Amino acid sequence: MRLRGKKVSTESLYERLEGWAVPDVSQCKGRWREFFGNASPIRVELGMGKGRFINEMSLKFPDINFIGVDRYDELLRRAGEMAVRLRGELSGDFPRNLALVRHNVERIEEMFEPGEAELIYLNFSDPWPKKRHAKRRLTHPDFLEKYKRILPPGGEIHLKTDSILLFEYSLNTFSDAGFRLRNITFDLHRDGPPQDNVMTEYEEKFVSRGMPIYRCEAIAP
Amino acid sequence: MRLRGKKVSTESLYERLEGWAVPDVSQCKGRWREFFGNASPIRVELGMGKGRFINEMSLKFPDINFIGVDRYDELLRRAGEMAVRLRGELSGDFPRNLALVRHNVERIEEMFEPGEAELIYLNFSDPWPKKRHAKRRLTHPDFLEKYKRILPPGGEIHLKTDSILLFEYSLNTFSDAGFRLRNITFDLHRDGPPQDNVMTEYEEKFVSRGMPIYRCEAIAP
Repeated sequence: MRLRGKKVSTESLYERLEGWAVPDVSQCKGRWREFFGNASPIRVELGMGKGRFINEMSLKFPDINFIGVDRYDELLRRAGEMAVRLRGELSGDFPRNLALVRHNVERIEEMFEPGEAELIYLNFSDPWPKKRHAKRRLTHPDFLEKYKRILPPGGEIHLKTDSILLFEYSLNTFSDAGFRLRNITFDLHRDGPPQDNVMTEYEEKFVSRGMPIYRCEAIAP
Repeated sequence: MRLRGKKVSTESLYERLEGWAVPDVSQCKGRWREFFGNASPIRVELGMGKGRFINEMSLKFPDINFIGVDRYDELLRRAGEMAVRLRGELSGDFPRNLALVRHNVERIEEMFEPGEAELIYLNFSDPWPKKRHAKRRLTHPDFLEKYKRILPPGGEIHLKTDSILLFEYSLNTFSDAGFRLRNITFDLHRDGPPQDNVMTEYEEKFVSRGMPIYRCEAIAP
């Protein structure tokens, strides 16, 4: 997501987030299960924004490890504060199954060994509608090649977007890159709230305006 | 397409169409190249309606054999008369690369040996929007299994529709049946008339009203 608002001091950021945010991601590559202290599967959201989705997912599915990635300190701070707050509000001990990482998706392979992440979420990624910006779309073929390397065969990408252009583009790039498409929908909320769907901030806004949400799953070859 | 208007006598139909219409399709199974008198590839439109598409395609691509299929005598008559008229209006000899067949798509395997048709066109098929009618949609999994048998591996299905519901449904059934999707577009005429596109009667009407045409290609496994 695009970032508006104040800058945060990087130095203090990681301390303030009480350990939710991971300062040196290169040390985790190939060792995420060590980091989480369990052998649960690892799912990653690329472009987590303010972090509502990844936070809610991590609470809803305690037996899965979630990693939220974004490029901006400010978003990392917001997502981390939400993590602290949500856990504080909940009674009982919650597993530590969430990590937040400031990282550029271009260099996603610095984060994971081949096959280390079982599922990638792409939620309301910037559609970059101009053709000359196509390379920045998170479903550009160059990105998909990287995702294929960090996913195992049969690993999944779940995409949600309000942009019909990004959706059309992504169905084609997924398919051309050898991903198998599944559960394609042009209106996720057509029949009311879909089962097991966790909404992002954007999604809630668009749905409240009656706009369709496009969604698909792409299965890695 | 749904049929309105007068009935035609079946007996006289095949004579009147000067040999364009094929009365006994079971005799052609496995022998279409013999029928056409050449070894050109064979493409078939399932649900040709009044036959504008298949007629124009057969004129535009003389080195491909086209077979138009529909269930109704009246449509067969119209498509056949168009074939006679178009050839009459053209100067010079045109190859006999078109056949018109009255047949139920349910029994498509009576028409072709395995691998005999290289490409299937589905243009503006009835979307059968009610769930209980899903079995009638020409992209229902039961139909796709039949298509897979008459197509060679790598054979293609080209689908055009104005129905977003049929399109969404078909992307999923194609993908689930092992077809690889290609050239998916949610608005075929977005950037003006697409190259090499031959319009159907429906398509012209919808495009003139500014409605989007959905299109995709599905490659057989």
